[in-house]
Amino acid sequence: MSTITNVQTYDLRFPTSSTLSGSDAMNKDPDYSSAYVVVSTDADDGLSGTGFVFTIGRGNDVVVAAIDSLAHTLVGRNVENLLDDMRAAWDMFVHDSQLRWLGPEKGVEHMAIGAVLSALWDLKAKRAGMPLWRLLAHMDPEELVATLDFRYLTDVLTPDEAVDMLRRGKDGLEEREAQLLKLGYPGYSTAAGWLGYSDEKMMAIAREETEVKGFKQIKLKVGQNLDDDLRRLGLARETIGPDVKLAVDANQVWDVPQAIDWINHFHDFDLEWVEEPTCPDDVLGHAAIQKAIDPIAVATGEQMQNRIMYKQYLQAGSFKVMQIDATRVAGPQEIVMEYLLANKFGVRVCPHAGGVGLCEAVCHFAMFDYLAVSGKWDDRVIEYVDNQHEYFVHPTEIRNGRYVAPTAPGSGVDMKLEAAQRYLYQG
Amino acid sequence: MSTITNVQTYDLRFPTSSTLSGSDAMNKDPDYSSAYVVVSTDADDGLSGTGFVFTIGRGNDVVVAAIDSLAHTLVGRNVENLLDDMRAAWDMFVHDSQLRWLGPEKGVEHMAIGAVLSALWDLKAKRAGMPLWRLLAHMDPEELVATLDFRYLTDVLTPDEAVDMLRRGKDGLEEREAQLLKLGYPGYSTAAGWLGYSDEKMMAIAREETEVKGFKQIKLKVGQNLDDDLRRLGLARETIGPDVKLAVDANQVWDVPQAIDWINHFHDFDLEWVEEPTCPDDVLGHAAIQKAIDPIAVATGEQMQNRIMYKQYLQAGSFKVMQIDATRVAGPQEIVMEYLLANKFGVRVCPHAGGVGLCEAVCHFAMFDYLAVSGKWDDRVIEYVDNQHEYFVHPTEIRNGRYVAPTAPGSGVDMKLEAAQRYLYQG
Repeated sequence: MSTITNVQTYDLRFPTSSTLSGSDAMNKDPDYSSAYVVVSTDADDGLSGTGFVFTIGRGNDVVVAAIDSLAHTLVGRNVENLLDDMRAAWDMFVHDSQLRWLGPEKGVEHMAIGAVLSALWDLKAKRAGMPLWRLLAHMDPEELVATLDFRYLTDVLTPDEAVDMLRRGKDGLEEREAQLLKLGYPGYSTAAGWLGYSDEKMMAIAREETEVKGFKQIKLKVGQNLDDDLRRLGLARETIGPDVKLAVDANQVWDVPQAIDWINHFHDFDLEWVEEPTCPDDVLGHAAIQKAIDPIAVATGEQMQNRIMYKQYLQAGSFKVMQIDATRVAGPQEIVMEYLLANKFGVRVCPHAGGVGLCEAVCHFAMFDYLAVSGKWDDRVIEYVDNQHEYFVHPTEIRNGRYVAPTAPGSGVDMKLEAAQRYLYQG
Repeated sequence: MSTITNVQTYDLRFPTSSTLSGSDAMNKDPDYSSAYVVVSTDADDGLSGTGFVFTIGRGNDVVVAAIDSLAHTLVGRNVENLLDDMRAAWDMFVHDSQLRWLGPEKGVEHMAIGAVLSALWDLKAKRAGMPLWRLLAHMDPEELVATLDFRYLTDVLTPDEAVDMLRRGKDGLEEREAQLLKLGYPGYSTAAGWLGYSDEKMMAIAREETEVKGFKQIKLKVGQNLDDDLRRLGLARETIGPDVKLAVDANQVWDVPQAIDWINHFHDFDLEWVEEPTCPDDVLGHAAIQKAIDPIAVATGEQMQNRIMYKQYLQAGSFKVMQIDATRVAGPQEIVMEYLLANKFGVRVCPHAGGVGLCEAVCHFAMFDYLAVSGKWDDRVIEYVDNQHEYFVHPTEIRNGRYVAPTAPGSGVDMKLEAAQRYLYQG
């Protein structure tokens, strides 16, 4: 029997805008940031639960304020009761009848709830002595499904179907786990692609990422100037050759008609996908774009607000690549649901990652999916950027272009706070 | 030449949960609240701009924190430059390249931006010596359209079309303005409908609202228990007779299949609309419901996050009644855009209102629409509930079931802070 004694937040902002790493057509000068939370207990094990929301600078304080405002609900609660019934923890926050007015289930409040629920799952995994991917993959299907919320989803997926899906996922799990531990999960690199880079810098990094680091896919930012895009895509394709995959990312700069026009200039580059062609809220707009640019695939998800939007993207055929994010939605339960939905519709998931802990966090869900849901990884990749990993206790490790499976207990997002503290925002 | 000197926020929470006024199938015990903001300048006129976000209690502090975090962008700025180029003010907040990560354009951050932009429009109207509805209706079409953001909308509405629409709206404006000032704008009452009320209380209030106060429409909350709903609808219809309109509101409690089943029991009551049958994010779900329950009309909007969602509801035929809200989106510019979109698709707008200033705020936009956009009010009504009006300097006045057109300069939401201050939240 133990009790939650403290919920401590940190507003961490890394001055990445000074290097133009992270620059794209929409995000000119991001300062990669983390609204970071640590949940402490009075248990003898000394374990704490860690969660965070990734932002790109201004407004990180608002997310911290939202997490702080949830803290009083947690402090004083029995830890075992919480961790043994994560569905109740979800309901306590996501379905709080007053808080839901602030969303419902979207934006700052939803991401803050995600950080808190992620911290609880982190603690649960640490107590189980397992990395989160392994805890999720080995949970009994009924037990995992009992933590999930099917509200607004039963027109496409019921709890019984989800249990069946996870039961089927158990076939061959042990072999896949051995493969995962041996080979790691495929990654791809965005390092070369930032719009702020010269052609020479882009090509040099593209060569380094593929020939030296072993990535089998790279991604370039596009959408600021069509001539520049065509020139850069030509140079990139020439640099990496025909066998390395090439994706592009427009970061929501286009309206629907403009997206269709622009992307239809890209048919000669054998693109793996076009990411975020327009507003992430536009289910119908993406469906129109996907239809008009076929066979190029639309990809999106890093700013998808919740599972109800994913449901519609899948229903409408609005994308062919689903890009989940670790800190946009309400924590592991919603992310697991996203994977179940994708699997129901046979759509591949290639997670978004990048700054301050996103790589560390999201790989657990991709690995869970490989082990226990889709069982596939040949058509899947996790984004990778070499950003702020040195501030993590168990930083993401890339070997031959693949994510090494983390083995430390927990969700992998504990930071070295003594090293990061010089980036504590002073207001 | 004057300068913004201060941006002061207030966390006001009225203990409405104690009376069950405001209770429905989703919101069991709301405490109607306001994240209220006053923008002060050093101008000799002594005028300040007022804005707010309505919430239902917990989390109001998070909205206040978000507004506070925007304040430093405003303090020290030249007032005339801001008010003369509201599009630049919009861009400064809505398109801040770092802040947009928190939405984009949804949830806490978007509503906070709405409060600040509303306060600027309030000041602009006060300086012009006009109520906001009149300022908007008499603006030159090009000038008004220049304040609007068509990003992500050009597949359905272009600036040129919007100018043409507003030019056509000038025909007969003077006569409509005279009618508005004489008769007021039609309202409807939700007072009888809260789920916490007994049948007797519901019927007594329904009689009072229609026979005494003159409302031509009432609305009941539904969705907790089908038998209760059928009994209450029968009693209500009996009480108000066949000529008063009757709407129902489910406050998002149903999944799509359940909504269709449940609502299809309601065909005998000659309903004006069924409001919020499911999640406001579910464009496709609402379209499926609207198709399956025809001729009953679907209505929704009070929690619609932004104009891109409205665009899709209109494209997909997801509703027949659009219910804009005054504090859910980014202020007057986005609300004007919502009216233009509705008019393009020929869908009627019946605004949401109710607690702490929503009635005071939203009527300006309905009146603007009547004067300058649709020119219609026969098929339109603004929601009315008698809540917290006594705390406003110019409270909403209802005469014969209609909203009296406000004549005081501004957007009508200045509060009597000395009276309200006992509801300042102490944390």
